[in-house]
Amino acid sequence: MLNGVGVQLAGFISQQRLMDNLAQLACFGALENGGVNRQALSNEELDARAWLIDWAYNLGCEVMTDGCANLFIRRAGREDLPPVVTGSHIDTQPCGGNLDGCYGVIAGMECLSALAQAGISTLRPIEVAVWMNEEGSRFSPGAMGSSAFVQPSRLDGYLNNQDAQGVTLAQALARCHQRFPLLPRRATLPMAAFVELHIEQGPVLEQANQPLAVVQGIQGVRWYQVTCLGQSAHAGTTPMADRLDAMSLARQKVQQLEQLAAILPADQLRLTFGRWEVEPNAINTIAGRVTFTLDFRHVDPAVLAQFDEWMQQISASNVLVECVFSHQPVAFNPELLAQQYACAQALQIDTATLTSGAFHDAMHLASHCPTSMFFVPSHNGISHNPAEYTDPQYLYLGAKALACCLTELANHP
Amino acid sequence: MLNGVGVQLAGFISQQRLMDNLAQLACFGALENGGVNRQALSNEELDARAWLIDWAYNLGCEVMTDGCANLFIRRAGREDLPPVVTGSHIDTQPCGGNLDGCYGVIAGMECLSALAQAGISTLRPIEVAVWMNEEGSRFSPGAMGSSAFVQPSRLDGYLNNQDAQGVTLAQALARCHQRFPLLPRRATLPMAAFVELHIEQGPVLEQANQPLAVVQGIQGVRWYQVTCLGQSAHAGTTPMADRLDAMSLARQKVQQLEQLAAILPADQLRLTFGRWEVEPNAINTIAGRVTFTLDFRHVDPAVLAQFDEWMQQISASNVLVECVFSHQPVAFNPELLAQQYACAQALQIDTATLTSGAFHDAMHLASHCPTSMFFVPSHNGISHNPAEYTDPQYLYLGAKALACCLTELANHP
Repeated sequence: MLNGVGVQLAGFISQQRLMDNLAQLACFGALENGGVNRQALSNEELDARAWLIDWAYNLGCEVMTDGCANLFIRRAGREDLPPVVTGSHIDTQPCGGNLDGCYGVIAGMECLSALAQAGISTLRPIEVAVWMNEEGSRFSPGAMGSSAFVQPSRLDGYLNNQDAQGVTLAQALARCHQRFPLLPRRATLPMAAFVELHIEQGPVLEQANQPLAVVQGIQGVRWYQVTCLGQSAHAGTTPMADRLDAMSLARQKVQQLEQLAAILPADQLRLTFGRWEVEPNAINTIAGRVTFTLDFRHVDPAVLAQFDEWMQQISASNVLVECVFSHQPVAFNPELLAQQYACAQALQIDTATLTSGAFHDAMHLASHCPTSMFFVPSHNGISHNPAEYTDPQYLYLGAKALACCLTELANHP
Repeated sequence: MLNGVGVQLAGFISQQRLMDNLAQLACFGALENGGVNRQALSNEELDARAWLIDWAYNLGCEVMTDGCANLFIRRAGREDLPPVVTGSHIDTQPCGGNLDGCYGVIAGMECLSALAQAGISTLRPIEVAVWMNEEGSRFSPGAMGSSAFVQPSRLDGYLNNQDAQGVTLAQALARCHQRFPLLPRRATLPMAAFVELHIEQGPVLEQANQPLAVVQGIQGVRWYQVTCLGQSAHAGTTPMADRLDAMSLARQKVQQLEQLAAILPADQLRLTFGRWEVEPNAINTIAGRVTFTLDFRHVDPAVLAQFDEWMQQISASNVLVECVFSHQPVAFNPELLAQQYACAQALQIDTATLTSGAFHDAMHLASHCPTSMFFVPSHNGISHNPAEYTDPQYLYLGAKALACCLTELANHP
């Protein structure tokens, strides 16, 4: 299944260069606590783009952008066929780490560096994509750039979305395009494959003591917002029997959902009640209104549909249930997965099988071209946090597997 | 027990005048929704003071203030003995009603109006006190004016407290004193009695179909803040078994406290979990830190002590328990209570017996002089809300009972 060039290229991957470049990227928006704050299209992110673009030109690559400010760094192939693409994102959470997204981009650049150093040419072009605003922490929704790439008509619906300072996406995009006026803009084009390398952002690989995973797909998700209505009243004067305490009601509903979900195997369950707003939120006033959110994920569409039914069961005249986001599970391309396993085996890297609990740009790309992902372990499962860490050896092995896979794919006619 | 002048004066109480003046006061800080926003020492509250002071001068009263901007409207007695005092407050919640506090002040002024109209003199002076910042919604703590009155050294500790705009109490007090430069300032002086008339702010009197209550005392209170520590993590990638969900922990602790408190008779229980802060409070992130407050009230010091023990039981290395406010139960003066019952009986007003679940300025005055309270019903128990309402007939009966009681007390040598 392998033609051997991929394994050869993997030998040119440099752990030192990979780590140096990760550290360089982490300087843009570095926080004193060791974390990074590099919001989509911020000055820090534009500076990081400039650095990446210089690097790309030094490698002899072409750089392009599109209407949603995605960046494409292209190493030409021997033929102008649809490219094999890797990449991820360089925007971060407000207090994020230096691996989420960045690892996928820098490892992709490391593959291009290794190809240049080795003097290897490929049949197809290889591209590193830098998807705009994956985190969604500046502009909603997340994974915006890859979403608008695979369906460009979505961009119009995003342009008026504002950040916390009232800047619209349209304004931020215009600023980015002004900063890089010479970059050619490209329309969405067919791709031969998209393979994203990412940190797991969970503890499973570390606990299994595995350095790498081939990711089978992405769990489906339901985001609901539940509003419980009571009657705010004085904490000292209102007998318990006369209360309509919205917080007690909310707690009952959460418990009811937990009981319903308890029929699912515990290791498959992902149920989180993450955001709570209480009104009037005063120490001496019974809550009159409580809004909480829940995030439910599962790989099986039937279970997600069952969950939707449970949500209808808990709704009532004083319990308003609203689905605010829904995405079906994504299954990655079986031929790509086979290619990934073959590469890992050829490189003698132990490889686990995982399903991603987090969204990634690959979620959108899967509707555009054969798509899959590699994961490397996250220490203690921590992500979106300055403490985000992966053993450099694992980062190295992940980049090798990616390099092998991209090269093999790029030599498929 | 009655000398008859009190009943005579009660005949001069005018429901029309009482309602008109309540409506007048409600104009200062009136909201479009029918409610009132009149924060302590705000422009609206200073305008209301000016209106009260004019009214007082028209009734031939003397007006004084003190270092904490409490207002004292004094109708002279035949002798310069310690006065009999009534009153309450005119500051409101940000979206409050027009009775909480205001009723006690306007009913006190109605008593002075009736005395003037009837041409009745009393042995002792009668005063209407307007206590500064009872609600505590502009400056913390609440009941600040009465607190500083009974123990003037407390004022120093309040002066640097800031409102939400960063204005210090000292600045707000200076502005008030500048607005009324001619008001004499008076030190704390002995008082013969303090009788406060207030709406119940709870549903008990209405449910019992009683127009009036003689209030036996004020429940003791404990305010605790509980901080539950977990580990924020990704909602999609973190298996349930690996989670340290601070919200789940907080819900467990609330349930544990509810179970412990369930040994108390339900009609005596007042337990409220009113304020919740969740971090990072994101839909797709497991809560890393949850802080909630609880308000527990009881009339029995032994039960309050038991509650303090329960709070120790729920504390742990990841559950930090802090008592942020504590006040022992207050028992009102038995002789005053007997006087109140006698007045109500003489006026043929059905009278219930209650313990106040809410704080009032009377809580502080009880440490200064014989103190007690009357309550009138609150429709549906609603208070701190534009919907706050009491049948005008009940407001009238309450004012009559107060008039009778003040006059009787003011004629005691």
